[in-house]
Amino acid sequence: MKDTLKTIPGSITAPQGFLASGVFCDIKRLGTGKGSNKGKKRDLALILSEVPATVAGLFTTSQVCAAPVKVSLPRARKGRAQAIVVNSGNANACTGAQGLRDAREMAAIAARIFRLPAESVLVASTGRIGVPLPMPNVKRGIQAAAGLLNTFPESAQHAAEAIMTSDTRPKEIAVEFELDGRVVRIGGICKGAGMIQPGMSPTGARPASAPRQGLHATMLCFLTTDAAIDSKALKAALAEAVANSFNRITVDGDMSTNDTVILLANGLAENPRMVANAGKGSKAHLAIFQTALNHVCLELAKMIVRDGEGATRFVTVHLSGAKSFADADAAARAVANSSLVKTSWFGGDPNWGRILGALGYSAAEIVEEKIDVAYSAPGSSKLLYALKRGQPTGTFFDSLCKMAAQKEFDLHINLNLGKAKAVIYASDLTEEYVEFNKGDVSDPASLGG
Amino acid sequence: MKDTLKTIPGSITAPQGFLASGVFCDIKRLGTGKGSNKGKKRDLALILSEVPATVAGLFTTSQVCAAPVKVSLPRARKGRAQAIVVNSGNANACTGAQGLRDAREMAAIAARIFRLPAESVLVASTGRIGVPLPMPNVKRGIQAAAGLLNTFPESAQHAAEAIMTSDTRPKEIAVEFELDGRVVRIGGICKGAGMIQPGMSPTGARPASAPRQGLHATMLCFLTTDAAIDSKALKAALAEAVANSFNRITVDGDMSTNDTVILLANGLAENPRMVANAGKGSKAHLAIFQTALNHVCLELAKMIVRDGEGATRFVTVHLSGAKSFADADAAARAVANSSLVKTSWFGGDPNWGRILGALGYSAAEIVEEKIDVAYSAPGSSKLLYALKRGQPTGTFFDSLCKMAAQKEFDLHINLNLGKAKAVIYASDLTEEYVEFNKGDVSDPASLGG
Repeated sequence: MKDTLKTIPGSITAPQGFLASGVFCDIKRLGTGKGSNKGKKRDLALILSEVPATVAGLFTTSQVCAAPVKVSLPRARKGRAQAIVVNSGNANACTGAQGLRDAREMAAIAARIFRLPAESVLVASTGRIGVPLPMPNVKRGIQAAAGLLNTFPESAQHAAEAIMTSDTRPKEIAVEFELDGRVVRIGGICKGAGMIQPGMSPTGARPASAPRQGLHATMLCFLTTDAAIDSKALKAALAEAVANSFNRITVDGDMSTNDTVILLANGLAENPRMVANAGKGSKAHLAIFQTALNHVCLELAKMIVRDGEGATRFVTVHLSGAKSFADADAAARAVANSSLVKTSWFGGDPNWGRILGALGYSAAEIVEEKIDVAYSAPGSSKLLYALKRGQPTGTFFDSLCKMAAQKEFDLHINLNLGKAKAVIYASDLTEEYVEFNKGDVSDPASLGG
Repeated sequence: MKDTLKTIPGSITAPQGFLASGVFCDIKRLGTGKGSNKGKKRDLALILSEVPATVAGLFTTSQVCAAPVKVSLPRARKGRAQAIVVNSGNANACTGAQGLRDAREMAAIAARIFRLPAESVLVASTGRIGVPLPMPNVKRGIQAAAGLLNTFPESAQHAAEAIMTSDTRPKEIAVEFELDGRVVRIGGICKGAGMIQPGMSPTGARPASAPRQGLHATMLCFLTTDAAIDSKALKAALAEAVANSFNRITVDGDMSTNDTVILLANGLAENPRMVANAGKGSKAHLAIFQTALNHVCLELAKMIVRDGEGATRFVTVHLSGAKSFADADAAARAVANSSLVKTSWFGGDPNWGRILGALGYSAAEIVEEKIDVAYSAPGSSKLLYALKRGQPTGTFFDSLCKMAAQKEFDLHINLNLGKAKAVIYASDLTEEYVEFNKGDVSDPASLGG
């Protein structure tokens, strides 16, 4: 199946019938005061399907959720949509009744331009919390973006740039595969950087794969596909893909008020329409589609970790041998979110003592004398053991240091108590993260969400 | 009651019949390799009561607990002890059967010198995890420390210095009060700095006041008193004092494998012996004793936060209006441990958006539209509101910034849902914390626990 999955150039405009654009309308710079000259960074993106599309969405499970989430969640649940408007620079979170009105109006402005029902436009925002959206700028931006909509890869890249906050680079991917002889494509863009430990669900209720305590900058992801698929099947596919990608990453252990993943499927590939609970043929197609969607989401999720605020390392934590998935998840997150473990990663220090320390206080059941800890190159099965059954191995400290000094490595923890597993993709904690997030109170625009 | 409580000079040798000392025996520098010249920092402390004493102890609730904890916990539960041996530089954690033998031998060396039953000597360790204790050095240290035991305040300070790891200063306190005309004293020393969010209990089982996920460097605290008090009353008093002090602090959200608080009461003040479940007179005395012990523990706990690794601010988080204590505790800890909130404190940024974000993902029940957030000077009831019922107030950003720029301030969060409260004492997250904890793999002795 995998060898028929091909990565292709571009992102959200790679599937048929999708247009995108990204413009600067001065949302990010507002409040920077006189003479600020931070450069005109794009801050408003538009995504449009030429025809009505099936939609699925997953949203933050934080109890403090932003106005755009409150507006988009019920619209995504209805299953049909055609456009998405996104701004960066302002999260429209903790903005009360005015924020809700602004989020609805943001959708309505686009709906009027494209002569769509307002309900078929979804919105998302990211940036500073607690500041009202500058609606004149938003309106100007949507109008400008509408005029620039195009299928060019550059247009998609402009959209990817417009949703960035502290990201250092746009994040894009597109893949292509066949279903019954028809070429089907999936494209995606996303942003992350800080306030990253998403725990998203389709309803706002916390799923098993979500962190108990989230981590965050906001993460946003917008996916497009020309696959023909019904709403129920699309929702199930996206839920599975997100559970194994965005809900498995952590940068700083903070869950955002705005985390959003939206997938539009417009059917223009004209494959036999995939439906949930169908016969063998549809099932096989769904499996191929799922593999492709999983790949797209995981690659985008990893881009977020690699570009985490101040991140210098990418560590994949493989937790196995737990008594339950909840235990495996809790143990992996305790390690991946420990400030002491994360700073030791920054220092290239294979400090398994701190790893055991984090396991010790995690909510997971563990037995110190049974724990194995090993390092490997990314994806390699050649493990370098630091600890076996709770005891230091003879592995030389220098060899462990050499592994921990790599930009990317895998950490393998086996609790040896059961069969449950969990993976977490994590970054380190660096001085640059602190420097960035302490902000500059004399420049409110520098203060992140 | 409080006006009869007097702070006096000195610490653990202020109560009658207690001797202390602290020496350098080269535990800290081991492994630094050739030519290291980091200075001879004391690394072994001894505390001795001239007569057998009642003892109470609280220990880490981490599932990975160090050998000295495993040795001292059952001895403390028995209720009688006379001496404590403590080393820094090596945690004797994750050291297996050898570690247990070493911890027992550490106590036995002291017991032989003082001709005490081995069971009456307790031990504690702090420092690098996973490295065997250098027993020849430990033995030499105990012998030297035994020869230097004294009641001088300087001797107590040497002990306070010897338990330090990344602490920048020794932490000491002593108080005096009267019980039925007899002068009673309590003294204490402690250490902290990083890996600090203790969740201690007398049994290793997690109490209600403990964090679900701990925070840490190890914290150690040794208390002495000449009060006459029975074992049951002493244990209850220490449990209450710790629940409201050491179990309410956080530096970095990591709970240690070695957290220990031990209190020796030798009765030499000759006050009427206080007993649990006794008549009115004993109850009144117990209340006075409790107030004094609470004060000693809270002051020491605050010293740990103020001297947290890289800390530049001391923030008291007052969480009120929660539906239950568990909710209040979870909400306060979510805020106090959020990397984003802590970096904003570092930056002097009154970022209530991040505070709401942390409340949103906490395990506590909250309703965004009901939350009040305010700042005040330490202990002041003059509140400067940033948020009322989930809405920004008219308070000028500059006024909030001025408050958040103070070295110490109080943060007041009212969930307005119930009557439960919790307080957490927290530090900020700074570049210095990261710089310190990333360590230097070329100098293993620089790598913290």
